[in-house]
Amino acid sequence: KSRVGIVGATGAVGGEVLKILEERKFPLEELVLFASARSEGKTVQFGGEKITIHEAESAAFSGLDIVFFAAGGGTSKNLAPEAVRHGAVVVDKSSAWRMDRSVPLVIPEVNGEDIRTHNGIISSPNCSTIVMLMALAPLHRANPIKRIIVDTYQSASGAGGKGIVELTEQTQGILAGKEVYHSTFPHTLAFNALPHVEDFADDDYTTEEIKMQNETRKILHAPDLPVSATCVRVPVPISHSEAVHIEFEHPFDPAEARQVLSEAVGVVVQDDVVNKVYPLATEASGKDEIFVGRIRRDLAFENGLSIWTVGDNLRKGAAL
Amino acid sequence: KSRVGIVGATGAVGGEVLKILEERKFPLEELVLFASARSEGKTVQFGGEKITIHEAESAAFSGLDIVFFAAGGGTSKNLAPEAVRHGAVVVDKSSAWRMDRSVPLVIPEVNGEDIRTHNGIISSPNCSTIVMLMALAPLHRANPIKRIIVDTYQSASGAGGKGIVELTEQTQGILAGKEVYHSTFPHTLAFNALPHVEDFADDDYTTEEIKMQNETRKILHAPDLPVSATCVRVPVPISHSEAVHIEFEHPFDPAEARQVLSEAVGVVVQDDVVNKVYPLATEASGKDEIFVGRIRRDLAFENGLSIWTVGDNLRKGAAL
Repeated sequence: KSRVGIVGATGAVGGEVLKILEERKFPLEELVLFASARSEGKTVQFGGEKITIHEAESAAFSGLDIVFFAAGGGTSKNLAPEAVRHGAVVVDKSSAWRMDRSVPLVIPEVNGEDIRTHNGIISSPNCSTIVMLMALAPLHRANPIKRIIVDTYQSASGAGGKGIVELTEQTQGILAGKEVYHSTFPHTLAFNALPHVEDFADDDYTTEEIKMQNETRKILHAPDLPVSATCVRVPVPISHSEAVHIEFEHPFDPAEARQVLSEAVGVVVQDDVVNKVYPLATEASGKDEIFVGRIRRDLAFENGLSIWTVGDNLRKGAAL
Repeated sequence: KSRVGIVGATGAVGGEVLKILEERKFPLEELVLFASARSEGKTVQFGGEKITIHEAESAAFSGLDIVFFAAGGGTSKNLAPEAVRHGAVVVDKSSAWRMDRSVPLVIPEVNGEDIRTHNGIISSPNCSTIVMLMALAPLHRANPIKRIIVDTYQSASGAGGKGIVELTEQTQGILAGKEVYHSTFPHTLAFNALPHVEDFADDDYTTEEIKMQNETRKILHAPDLPVSATCVRVPVPISHSEAVHIEFEHPFDPAEARQVLSEAVGVVVQDDVVNKVYPLATEASGKDEIFVGRIRRDLAFENGLSIWTVGDNLRKGAAL
């Protein structure tokens, strides 16, 4: 039995971590919940009990075995080393440590063995990377990937619980013919598509797009793999969808790819277009698996496949 | 002055054609409006006048100079040759004649000169092709395109006026916690992303995706150009957005591409990411131009660019 802490327990991802610990009857000796000072003293329901929220601070990590960080990158940067210093193993869901050479970046089904190299912090990839690589890693093992082009259809909850609230309020406002506000998103997201997830960085790419390249390279141990992404926010509350175009070393028959994916752990193939079966954000939400469909030859590459992959960004994309 | 007919005058695209004829004060000798038998006798407002809708049938085209077909492919297949036989030039907005070798497929700003080869029917491309090629053709003239990968974010109105109604009713229903129906779309579109536009055809591609390949090749006179598309419907009422990844023969500096596009007729560059300026579906609606932004080096190709292009699918994508 473990003594477990959750930093960011009141957030969208923290809430999913709590749900999963409860559903899976995780063997808990103790559960300590942390959030910002603002939430100090609030309570959260867990397994019929009320658990009080504490302010996240160094000394409070004493005695914990595992601490999940589901807050912002700044919090992880500051406090994850403190949790490690107090003897805990940190599972960090923020971007703070992902590209640190001394920190393994792990999707259990993809590169679980990388966990062995940890020095106290284990990092979880970005949600859009996880949704893509759960589908691509099994294909890559069967036939090395040479090039990836991906365009995303990312949900409002990628910006946290407040993203869902803002999308709902904007939608209600527009249907009522009112002026609508935006603060979480850079423009009105309702009834729109925003080619802007996170912040703009080098070469007019967003940090989200750069993450998809860099994290993919680290996780697949393919430091030079070309990965081109356009990350787009769409008016969907939960689950990211992605259109992925992949060039392989060798020809890849779609039927063979379907077979490989149907045997992959954590992946469900939904690919029966005659019966209108393909992954959908609305159906993936709340599920542990990543869903893959529209598996077909890519018309732009001789050895290419196109796929459509969908997963719950809060759950499989973060908390799980 | 011309005697003009519009077939499908009560539809989403037909309505836009009427709006444009009025806005541009098109020199009309006569305007005759047609629709299906169901709408016979209804009236439509035009320039302060009420115009009665007639059932579209062969004899009624007699004496017309130009007939715009803005109905389904079946109607165009049957009646466009009849209009030609009665002496009219047909501008067809359906898919019926696009790939016919004797019919030019024309975007005025891209291959306007192809209009000269017409034998009575001039075909307009698919909306998603127009939105893409308005941006790509000027680049192609500057530096030949070798490969196109495109993923679309297509609006509900691509399925006609009833698509907008269904999206609105679904959205209202979901916000009210009610069961929702779908009939125009294959699944619930509200708060979702559907990788299914039009019907499935060969090799598990949709007809919409195949059109983007075949029409692009015909319009650019590049019969072997590789074009790979995933066409996706998103909960947006009007305007299609597209993430396009392009490989060129030679290196293409993003600043140079921006310059080329800023000089292209019918194209507006909106590309100032520091100030959160990029094309948006909500802003493109009702406009004649195609909007292009997020112009940057594509990370998957040595000589590549990525762009984000948006246009009103009813207006520039069809009626105009």
